[in-house]
Amino acid sequence: MAKDLTSRENDYSQWYNELVSKADLAEHSSVRGCMVIKPYGYSIWEKMQAVLDKKFKDTGHSNAYFPLFIPKSFLSKEAAHVEGFAKECAVVTHYRLKTDPETGGVIVDPEAKLEEELIVRPTSETIIWNTYKGWIQSYRDLPILVNQWANVVRWEMRTRLFLRTAEFLWQEGHTAHATAEEAIAETEQMLDVYADFVENWMALPVVKGRKTPNERFAGALDTYCIEALMQDGKALQAGTSHFLGQNFAKAFDVKFTGKDGKLDYVWATSWGVSTRLMGALVMAHSDDDGLVLPPKLAPIQVVVVPIYKSDEEADKITEVVKKLKKDLEDKGISVKYDNRDTQRPGFKFAEWELKGVPVRIAIGARDLENQTVEVARRDTKEKMVLQMNDLANKVEHLLEEIQDNIYQKAKAFRTDSITKVDTYEEFKQVLANKAGFVSAHWDGTPETEQQIKDETKATIRCIPLDNPLEEGKCILTGKPSTQRVLFAIAY
Amino acid sequence: MAKDLTSRENDYSQWYNELVSKADLAEHSSVRGCMVIKPYGYSIWEKMQAVLDKKFKDTGHSNAYFPLFIPKSFLSKEAAHVEGFAKECAVVTHYRLKTDPETGGVIVDPEAKLEEELIVRPTSETIIWNTYKGWIQSYRDLPILVNQWANVVRWEMRTRLFLRTAEFLWQEGHTAHATAEEAIAETEQMLDVYADFVENWMALPVVKGRKTPNERFAGALDTYCIEALMQDGKALQAGTSHFLGQNFAKAFDVKFTGKDGKLDYVWATSWGVSTRLMGALVMAHSDDDGLVLPPKLAPIQVVVVPIYKSDEEADKITEVVKKLKKDLEDKGISVKYDNRDTQRPGFKFAEWELKGVPVRIAIGARDLENQTVEVARRDTKEKMVLQMNDLANKVEHLLEEIQDNIYQKAKAFRTDSITKVDTYEEFKQVLANKAGFVSAHWDGTPETEQQIKDETKATIRCIPLDNPLEEGKCILTGKPSTQRVLFAIAY
Repeated sequence: MAKDLTSRENDYSQWYNELVSKADLAEHSSVRGCMVIKPYGYSIWEKMQAVLDKKFKDTGHSNAYFPLFIPKSFLSKEAAHVEGFAKECAVVTHYRLKTDPETGGVIVDPEAKLEEELIVRPTSETIIWNTYKGWIQSYRDLPILVNQWANVVRWEMRTRLFLRTAEFLWQEGHTAHATAEEAIAETEQMLDVYADFVENWMALPVVKGRKTPNERFAGALDTYCIEALMQDGKALQAGTSHFLGQNFAKAFDVKFTGKDGKLDYVWATSWGVSTRLMGALVMAHSDDDGLVLPPKLAPIQVVVVPIYKSDEEADKITEVVKKLKKDLEDKGISVKYDNRDTQRPGFKFAEWELKGVPVRIAIGARDLENQTVEVARRDTKEKMVLQMNDLANKVEHLLEEIQDNIYQKAKAFRTDSITKVDTYEEFKQVLANKAGFVSAHWDGTPETEQQIKDETKATIRCIPLDNPLEEGKCILTGKPSTQRVLFAIAY
Repeated sequence: MAKDLTSRENDYSQWYNELVSKADLAEHSSVRGCMVIKPYGYSIWEKMQAVLDKKFKDTGHSNAYFPLFIPKSFLSKEAAHVEGFAKECAVVTHYRLKTDPETGGVIVDPEAKLEEELIVRPTSETIIWNTYKGWIQSYRDLPILVNQWANVVRWEMRTRLFLRTAEFLWQEGHTAHATAEEAIAETEQMLDVYADFVENWMALPVVKGRKTPNERFAGALDTYCIEALMQDGKALQAGTSHFLGQNFAKAFDVKFTGKDGKLDYVWATSWGVSTRLMGALVMAHSDDDGLVLPPKLAPIQVVVVPIYKSDEEADKITEVVKKLKKDLEDKGISVKYDNRDTQRPGFKFAEWELKGVPVRIAIGARDLENQTVEVARRDTKEKMVLQMNDLANKVEHLLEEIQDNIYQKAKAFRTDSITKVDTYEEFKQVLANKAGFVSAHWDGTPETEQQIKDETKATIRCIPLDNPLEEGKCILTGKPSTQRVLFAIAY
């Protein structure tokens, strides 16, 4: 099976497409730009959701649900927002089909035209702030800490599974606060929640930073982001957290009476991660044989494959596996016993490798005699023979080790892939070598940023949060600069 | 607070609307027919989801996700299906907005018209069976047991929060099988799962039955349902499970090679429950003071209200409550300590009554002396003084007792609300008295069913699964009948 995968070196993009499909994560649907998330892919997304949802609740947030549709006029209320989203949205104009009396075919009923068109939400700031207006009168109603798990639609012209699809799944947090300080603290807190999740569950190191005005969310005063690096040297924005100031409160006239009795507009944040993280997970760790899943997000953490020559052997192995499986499950480890009699062990090995199961246990007749099993790690391909005695504990530690190893490997790669450059020539050289992040001085103007993007396709991924001040000259214009920023070609 | 509720006797419908709103479950949005599910309401829905999701997985199903949009031509492929859903669907015709050069306003860009209109899914049989075509070649690919949690849109003209909204949340299971027998067994199994959930978690007794052809799902060969009774004597369909035969497989040309090497169409089921269950939960048990939630679905199972006259007293109480709260939480009981200093105990009592918290514990200075607490049940309004000693165990049992009591009460009401009648006069009389289900003979024709509906608004809710055969005469036509069916006026 795995042999069929294009190698990363040959064609990284093709490798990704094939892997997503062959590993049963997702596929293109018949609806342009919309994907089907298949059960195996969805089970990974469910694990992500569960971890994130708990983190949101632990930080005081509740879930709620707001309408799929946004009246056209709402989108227009915040100027930058409509500018950012109007160009790529699905518009509902009618509410009924009918049978064409002439052709007998099904057509849109021209008499069922909506008075005002509805937009399928590309993001929900407008409909939510229109709702918050009814919820907020006084400082006692604040803060509002709400999250929504939902589908959103952005009519992208060029789509790729998980990375860029017309419809995708995400969560969007929308909070309301009495002061700017509190809203900024929330924005930063949620960035930390995202960074913690991506690093410690997805095993993917990120750079925390802020976007330049050019790259900000449409309607935000400040956009924080986490940026990760894929194996092909491209960056991927893994999550964003926006300080929205009073923009949406002003657009929807949401005021509150403060402790001092004065009326003021409410301060806002929003923050989100999406099924894009699935794409990042695939691209960050996987290899030419298939997925490499970090144990903490793997739907199946251990697969057990029996190797037998007779039914009698098979029965004996199954007896032992039953107990082993229970021991592992008692530790909260998810185990699949692959005892299909329609496939050979070699086929099964390749299949579970393709699907990224972190630990494979093979067990044959000789193992029963010796009270051993063969354990194979997906990340390093290392095989070892272990005594069955105390196996659950050993596997538990092995899973932790794999989680850590995957992270360390990605981190070492990321560290090697940040290059400081001081000239535009070097800058272009590094990009040509697909060498990842380029740390360079920039004069701080949107014009320079745009010109660099036009000439190299590289964008400023972020201004890192822990950036040291350093005098320098802009790589393009030579104008003075006080700090380096992080450029990359991005997904 | 609670005093503000209209009583059920005065105006049941108004009582329901006020309760949903005042108890912070949901509200109407600015988008016609679409609701906002508020955090408290959503937290109940999340509990429902968690229980159902586990039951689906325990019966071998996996979750997946399919597109929000359905090409118009797909809907048309199954004749009954398009007939059932075309009249009330949201149609996407364009994919871009633009600024009107003349007015400066935001308009739909006429140049961004879709070649084929997309329907926002009212249900997903068509897009899913179009997908299954690529997944199924042989009997080895079967069964497919997939569920989806999603939002769907049906353009209802008259909407009510939870009960009938243009957009609602639901789950839809879609399974594919090699034989009709297996598909029917699945249909029945999922009906049992639903009945188990509604009876044992929602504490609401249901009648399991089958729909008449008139009331079947558009595209089904057989629709199974569970029907519940609300306090006003109206019935509510709480869940449906459909045997779809080979209709969708034929519409989307999904065939498989059997063990015998022969090619045949695949057999299908679909089954769903929605946020409508939230409406059923509210209407089934609540009273004139507010919600009555069954403990198994209550987001807050126990609220503790301190009663104090000084800060010193408050501190002492808080100290004791901390320990008590931990004891309860160790048993998996969710506890809210309402120590707001902005509200008086009476206000808090009324608020938590309104929100349906099953058990309220009040604790004051004298309680500390006596090592007692005052415990109030939401369902019976009964109050009792309990020794603090071993309180967690007592509360745990009390919650079980409340769950059971709510169910028994609803069941007794339901039993009293099934009336056998043998004449049309009696039939109309019972309906006029809002007396619930009417068990009557029917001649088995759609015409009679329709005439009864036109004249009385009552529909055949179901033909109960355990129906005894009994000779009789149709209440309307006097024609012979072999069994009674269950009529009611329904939500």
